[in-house]
Amino acid sequence: MTTTETAPGALAAVVRTPGHSLPGPLYAGEEAYRTDLEAVFGRSWLFVATEPEIAEPGDFITVDIGRRSVILIRDDDMSVRAFHNVCRHRGSRLLDACSGSTGNIVCPYHQWTYDTEGHLLHAESSGPDLDRAALSLRPVHVRPVAGLIFICLAAEPSADFDDYAATVSPYLAPHRLAQAKVATQIDIIEDGNWKLVMENNRECTHCGGHPELIKSLFPVYGYQPEDISPRLRPAFERYSAAHREFTATCDELGMLWRANEQLDTRQTGFRIEREPLDMAGESFTADGRRACRKLLADFPTARLGRLSMHVQPNAWFHALADHAVTFSVLPIAPDKSLLRTTWLVHKDAVEGRDYELDSLTHVWRLTNDQDRTFVARAHRGVSDPAYVPGPYLAPEYQVDAFCTWYADRLAEYRAAAGV
Amino acid sequence: MTTTETAPGALAAVVRTPGHSLPGPLYAGEEAYRTDLEAVFGRSWLFVATEPEIAEPGDFITVDIGRRSVILIRDDDMSVRAFHNVCRHRGSRLLDACSGSTGNIVCPYHQWTYDTEGHLLHAESSGPDLDRAALSLRPVHVRPVAGLIFICLAAEPSADFDDYAATVSPYLAPHRLAQAKVATQIDIIEDGNWKLVMENNRECTHCGGHPELIKSLFPVYGYQPEDISPRLRPAFERYSAAHREFTATCDELGMLWRANEQLDTRQTGFRIEREPLDMAGESFTADGRRACRKLLADFPTARLGRLSMHVQPNAWFHALADHAVTFSVLPIAPDKSLLRTTWLVHKDAVEGRDYELDSLTHVWRLTNDQDRTFVARAHRGVSDPAYVPGPYLAPEYQVDAFCTWYADRLAEYRAAAGV
Amino acid sequence: MTTTETAPGALAAVVRTPGHSLPGPLYAGEEAYRTDLEAVFGRSWLFVATEPEIAEPGDFITVDIGRRSVILIRDDDMSVRAFHNVCRHRGSRLLDACSGSTGNIVCPYHQWTYDTEGHLLHAESSGPDLDRAALSLRPVHVRPVAGLIFICLAAEPSADFDDYAATVSPYLAPHRLAQAKVATQIDIIEDGNWKLVMENNRECTHCGGHPELIKSLFPVYGYQPEDISPRLRPAFERYSAAHREFTATCDELGMLWRANEQLDTRQTGFRIEREPLDMAGESFTADGRRACRKLLADFPTARLGRLSMHVQPNAWFHALADHAVTFSVLPIAPDKSLLRTTWLVHKDAVEGRDYELDSLTHVWRLTNDQDRTFVARAHRGVSDPAYVPGPYLAPEYQVDAFCTWYADRLAEYRAAAGV
Repeated sequence: MTTTETAPGALAAVVRTPGHSLPGPLYAGEEAYRTDLEAVFGRSWLFVATEPEIAEPGDFITVDIGRRSVILIRDDDMSVRAFHNVCRHRGSRLLDACSGSTGNIVCPYHQWTYDTEGHLLHAESSGPDLDRAALSLRPVHVRPVAGLIFICLAAEPSADFDDYAATVSPYLAPHRLAQAKVATQIDIIEDGNWKLVMENNRECTHCGGHPELIKSLFPVYGYQPEDISPRLRPAFERYSAAHREFTATCDELGMLWRANEQLDTRQTGFRIEREPLDMAGESFTADGRRACRKLLADFPTARLGRLSMHVQPNAWFHALADHAVTFSVLPIAPDKSLLRTTWLVHKDAVEGRDYELDSLTHVWRLTNDQDRTFVARAHRGVSDPAYVPGPYLAPEYQVDAFCTWYADRLAEYRAAAGV
Repeated sequence: MTTTETAPGALAAVVRTPGHSLPGPLYAGEEAYRTDLEAVFGRSWLFVATEPEIAEPGDFITVDIGRRSVILIRDDDMSVRAFHNVCRHRGSRLLDACSGSTGNIVCPYHQWTYDTEGHLLHAESSGPDLDRAALSLRPVHVRPVAGLIFICLAAEPSADFDDYAATVSPYLAPHRLAQAKVATQIDIIEDGNWKLVMENNRECTHCGGHPELIKSLFPVYGYQPEDISPRLRPAFERYSAAHREFTATCDELGMLWRANEQLDTRQTGFRIEREPLDMAGESFTADGRRACRKLLADFPTARLGRLSMHVQPNAWFHALADHAVTFSVLPIAPDKSLLRTTWLVHKDAVEGRDYELDSLTHVWRLTNDQDRTFVARAHRGVSDPAYVPGPYLAPEYQVDAFCTWYADRLAEYRAAAGV
Repeated sequence: MTTTETAPGALAAVVRTPGHSLPGPLYAGEEAYRTDLEAVFGRSWLFVATEPEIAEPGDFITVDIGRRSVILIRDDDMSVRAFHNVCRHRGSRLLDACSGSTGNIVCPYHQWTYDTEGHLLHAESSGPDLDRAALSLRPVHVRPVAGLIFICLAAEPSADFDDYAATVSPYLAPHRLAQAKVATQIDIIEDGNWKLVMENNRECTHCGGHPELIKSLFPVYGYQPEDISPRLRPAFERYSAAHREFTATCDELGMLWRANEQLDTRQTGFRIEREPLDMAGESFTADGRRACRKLLADFPTARLGRLSMHVQPNAWFHALADHAVTFSVLPIAPDKSLLRTTWLVHKDAVEGRDYELDSLTHVWRLTNDQDRTFVARAHRGVSDPAYVPGPYLAPEYQVDAFCTWYADRLAEYRAAAGV
């Protein structure tokens, strides 16, 4: 942890200037971290896992959010359940492992035993007076959306998530993510505040720093034609040509592609759009050809570009014809964030035959690592007392929207908490 | 250090529900740690060492309590002295080593020199105006009790310690701990708050997790007959039979055995009792036979079970016929505690002939390590904002008493400090 | 970082007793650290580098002060410039390296490009509305003094620096440090508060702990004749004899030598004096002979002793005939300080022919390491709640002056900040 130089209690007086990056105290220091865990991660719907990670009854994963740990487990009826990973007896963590499979959930300390629906089944020497019904595991709100699992730690989750789910499901459904399998999952720790990780993903004006990615991804994301510099002109023209052909294909196949962007106008801020890829147009590879021979579904073509979705506060996704890749960001300290990247392929795809892990993950492993460097440098800079928020340029309008959304969440939290 | 999510100043409003584990903010976070160092470790008598650790004049050890360091030294009259390990000149630590032997205490910075009674003997270039008498080492209250050394950091230590010492000395005296020698001492760091380490030792409902220990220790400690589950029935019956024979032996030998339990009714909360061991009944070994051939004293039998004592806030002890083992717990961070375990044998016992270190320490090395895992998991759980204090069951009544005692100490401290 | 036991906000009530070491809370804990960064390092002129470190246009170094990073760069007109190392766009650190050479300063995130005078030259996709003139790099006040580079982070630096520079320049000028070259630079981290590092250097009553140094440096620094103990008598007599001859030589050569001591009477507290060395009297070596055959300037003799300067808050210097050595102290945590030591020799001196790095640096490498031990032990002691400030003795009067100066800076800061 970076030692903070900000005095405690200083945060409430900090005001953001629209169109500019956030004030430094909102990025650095214990108080901002604590506030974000409550105001944002304690209230928003969070993407934390994919359904294929817990495919069978009894399969579980545990997810840490600040000092919280949440169990996601598939119950015997194939529903996804979520519980706080805390025994109702004396508070011991129940499950240590990041993932596994279990029958009942048995506390390793005094063997209190819960079923997969959270009911307390057994507590030795407890006597008849113990109110077992009052000692079920504390549930966490959980919602799978087209194979993506979201949780919400709030007592009363935002109702706008229903509308979000209804909006994005038809885009995602063709990729059949709930039926996919995990090819691999990689966690990296970024030395920067979670907001800087998210901001970094909201613009492509830094994409010159991603030489592998921009072979297949057009580096004009977020640009309007009038903002295209001479350097980007050739890419933009290729993009425009590809886009015309691509959207015609999508329309023909009945696949939704139009951008739906609601980043700063709602609690579950999001953006979804299907866009063409460069080169062969199939996947995130050096030549744009598929990285997995077996496609995710019975698609008539692999040239389906990327269905890209952002969901605030903490996730982004790319669903392609041959694979999907999901990204979740979780704060672990004021200046540390966990980035979890998960690659999904068709459940019958066979490693070594249909795909090689190395080539499937090559582009995003390198891109994540490049972004890690950008984020760490940005964190050090915005933690500097000499930092003054600077202006977002036009192709960074989504970063600005993210910051607006974030400032709204803080205001909402303070209004609710009366602070 | 775990990053805390608790806002500063939140602790005073936290209230404990009797019969339940402590509220989370009392276990985790900087404020609880700071408060405990003042309210508990700054005011209570603390067990910190055994007399055999400083057997000869000039022998010393240093003990850290939070940011404090205390020197325990045997002076030329064979008394045990305790001083703050801080030079009266410019504050340098005087003694770096954990243990050693010295004539005078000489500050390594500017050579200010103190005798073993703390008097300033020499300060170069100090001139006649220096008030040497006012610059003695600052003493710490110290009391040996039957070979166990207690200190108190308060200006005015609790007077109830006299009564405690008078009560327990006759139980301990036959084991002649002051005349023993240290076979070995092992420090481990537990990743949990000190209170969780103490609570863990106040009950045996988790003893299923100690397969080595429960070969000789009956896992029914703290149970009333009506709380014995079918699983524990055989052990309880063996215990009851052993107990009848054992207490008759003790009475015959004039060794005190009856429980004296004053855990939550006084400042120096304690419990002492002599109980039988399982199997051969002599020691903490796989077959219950002695681990040291030479007994601690001229006992007519080695089947003296365990004289077990708890002293709050920070220690427990087992004195057997063949050896004794002492445990002290000292907080080193909100989520880190030092557990120091010391094995004592007769001073003439010879390693390799009378005992092997490996087998002497086997059971408690493994048991401590198992407890370390329980405590770490408990700490993570009670630090989770989703943790809600749960009910103590009947065989955990001593844990409840510890928590009651602790809450009383906080109340007492706040009353005294006017906070 | 040591966990603090001091409650936040406790610092303002802390009062220093003149003639005594500082109260513990001023040495330890987050609040003191934060305050010092603002009150002292945010307002004073700081020595941070020597001119030879950035000899050519485009040469730069970066210096960290708390969470700040400052770029020192030589511009095309050979002036030394200083800028905050923060991009005016979204705050990224601009230069990662500790030192290097560059044409323009290009942000690695989005390629915003600044010239060596800090002007924003280029920002892709920025459009005509961007007020480039308002987005220059933020300058930091910078002043080279006879080859030594000082910066000031305050908006309005203290004007007394002009007088300081005018006073010391004639002492330093003959050594031609601006034209020297860096033989080597060594950073070490001391486990103690920066003030303890500075205090340690203000007295020689601990010089018995520096066996290598006191071969050439008379260990009577800071002593008046009446404070010389029998142990120091021989050294003092050698010193007195050497001093008479030495000052005559200096006078003859027109080299200033008289002490000018203004440690606690001004914002830029300093002391400068030229004094003889022991043995051959030329350099910090075992026999007092030069460590570099080629002298720093065209001196008629190498027996020029040491021109020693202290500048508060953070530096000291020794300029000799054959080399100079500079020391800067920068806080990096409440209990961690960076000590940077730089050895300068004539720019045409050739390693292996004119000097060996090992012997040139031998004495101060060992002395620094010995001081590191003293400082770490002092920090642990003054962090102990049992520490009580003790009396400074006569030969420690400069330490006392440093503490007086420091207390004045705190008072001045609080008056200015209204806290």
